[in-house]
Amino acid sequence: MKTLLKTLCQTSMQAAVARQASLTKPAGSLGRLEEMAIWLAGCQGRVCPKIERPWISVFAADHGVTEEGVSAFPAVVTQEMVKNFAAGGAAITVLARENGAQFEVVDVGVFNDVAPLPSLISARVAAGSSNFKLQPAMTEAQLQAALTAGEAAVERALAAGADLFIGGEMGIGNTTAAAAMISRLCNAPLETIVGHGTGINDEQKQHKTKVIQTALDLHRAAMTDAMSVLQHIGGLEIAALTGAYLHCARHGLPMVIDGVISCAAALVACKVAPKAKAWMVFAHQSVEPAQQAVFSDLAVDPLIDLQMRLGEGSGAALAIPLIKLACALHAQMATFEQAGVSGAD
Amino acid sequence: MKTLLKTLCQTSMQAAVARQASLTKPAGSLGRLEEMAIWLAGCQGRVCPKIERPWISVFAADHGVTEEGVSAFPAVVTQEMVKNFAAGGAAITVLARENGAQFEVVDVGVFNDVAPLPSLISARVAAGSSNFKLQPAMTEAQLQAALTAGEAAVERALAAGADLFIGGEMGIGNTTAAAAMISRLCNAPLETIVGHGTGINDEQKQHKTKVIQTALDLHRAAMTDAMSVLQHIGGLEIAALTGAYLHCARHGLPMVIDGVISCAAALVACKVAPKAKAWMVFAHQSVEPAQQAVFSDLAVDPLIDLQMRLGEGSGAALAIPLIKLACALHAQMATFEQAGVSGAD
Repeated sequence: MKTLLKTLCQTSMQAAVARQASLTKPAGSLGRLEEMAIWLAGCQGRVCPKIERPWISVFAADHGVTEEGVSAFPAVVTQEMVKNFAAGGAAITVLARENGAQFEVVDVGVFNDVAPLPSLISARVAAGSSNFKLQPAMTEAQLQAALTAGEAAVERALAAGADLFIGGEMGIGNTTAAAAMISRLCNAPLETIVGHGTGINDEQKQHKTKVIQTALDLHRAAMTDAMSVLQHIGGLEIAALTGAYLHCARHGLPMVIDGVISCAAALVACKVAPKAKAWMVFAHQSVEPAQQAVFSDLAVDPLIDLQMRLGEGSGAALAIPLIKLACALHAQMATFEQAGVSGAD
Repeated sequence: MKTLLKTLCQTSMQAAVARQASLTKPAGSLGRLEEMAIWLAGCQGRVCPKIERPWISVFAADHGVTEEGVSAFPAVVTQEMVKNFAAGGAAITVLARENGAQFEVVDVGVFNDVAPLPSLISARVAAGSSNFKLQPAMTEAQLQAALTAGEAAVERALAAGADLFIGGEMGIGNTTAAAAMISRLCNAPLETIVGHGTGINDEQKQHKTKVIQTALDLHRAAMTDAMSVLQHIGGLEIAALTGAYLHCARHGLPMVIDGVISCAAALVACKVAPKAKAWMVFAHQSVEPAQQAVFSDLAVDPLIDLQMRLGEGSGAALAIPLIKLACALHAQMATFEQAGVSGAD
């Protein structure tokens, strides 16, 4: 496992802390915006960091477990949405455009191949994962290929000079996989974890919970570490996200983590390489309950809560302007000395 | 009292609700971004609203009560910060620039006149409010003049074609005034209301609480309605904000409300004219405890919580990009029909 990670520049972070204390405002009064600027100073190794080239890769794949009827939407929506991403009509493509972010959608295993399309990278590992109620979601070779597809996205981002990485996902059925993974990895009871996903009712949620319970029982002995959890009850796009996150941490590319699916992938990355967390900021509190278990496990707090549950990287994309403004405040505000403003008594 | 308010366009809001339901995402999955777009549709009377010309007026004034030693900073900081606003070195000026917002600072009663300066509007009502521990903060004539100064700012915004109004404030001592007002107007005990302001310690906070209690006792009989509360224990910049908010509601200009001081002004506006609330969005949860009492009283939820407590309109300015993105998503996302995406089963 290639887990030699970069570390943040402590000198730049200390200088950023000192700069924050010198700016014309009560100490600490910019709250989490100060944290963001200091964190990015550490990521970029300079006192005044900037975000100029955000990058968004959305990984798409289908889930064999959808044949159990766990989602409000038919599985064909995954491929239909891939076309919508390519045409620029999905939420994340609007957010990418408005934020000036580079965007790509990566097919790591939609049931039906829809390439070629604009902005679509074909990196198909399989025609969907297997139904994990009956067998492992992926073979070990498929898991490795999906991780590698994620790494390749980060390589493209780095080659384009990206300074912030956002991973998104599309895959009907993937809240089922994420809930299963998070329940197992956080040792949390399913009733506190399983949510309504894209909009199932309470009865369907009970069914979804039963399907997950069966899968957890089936694969219990085989799931000996985080990667084997991902292999047995995860999904191809979740594995790609995990590979991407680990690769960002290896290369010192800061990342903004999105909703519950991205959090499941980030959790695996942090279990495999705990120091990967230093390169992550968690963008938003999703409506899906499983996410809270990840936040508790990793001891992190999301930046915003806009009651979203869309995925695609949309919550993370909303953090881009806030992070940019944090950098602008940090760099452009006058110090007490420059402005001739008196300090606290 | 000129309280004939505009009302939101219900037809446009209904059309916006229908449009949201047609976009390629699970119903409701964009959470509060959907709310924002629908609200602005009502404000602007069109299905797809846009924010193109946000406007920020920061009202500055001093507080006579600062002679009681209620703040961590000396009162001279108000005038020093007015100069910092004019020079573009304060947080709100950075945020205005980065968001492409028009900016002005309005002196409604700093102790010492510092005009002329760039971006500074001189609308001085008095050289600070009176010490409300000993006498009313303002005379009735001063209150009226300060309300009018707020209205005049909105007139300037309207003349410039502004489509979103943010009021900010600067005034050493103004968390003392805001806490006093909110305690009285929300009938909330001071121990749940008084905070650490710009950074006083617990002992100083006890002293601040005693000063407020004395003022509440002194003016109890005279404070018969919201406007008289503002007059007796408020401040000139808080009155200007109140005047501005009421004028926005009269003219149908949507507003983003900032932190605890702005909330105190918004609370008075809503007590005077309850329908003013329809034109307001509350930007952020401040660290100052008094704000929560306002949210409970008005039954509103702030958009974001970044642990800020700076004032100046800074929290409200952070909401600008989120509101713009809400409009972009609403206008630019493809519908299920346009994209050929299947709906929920």
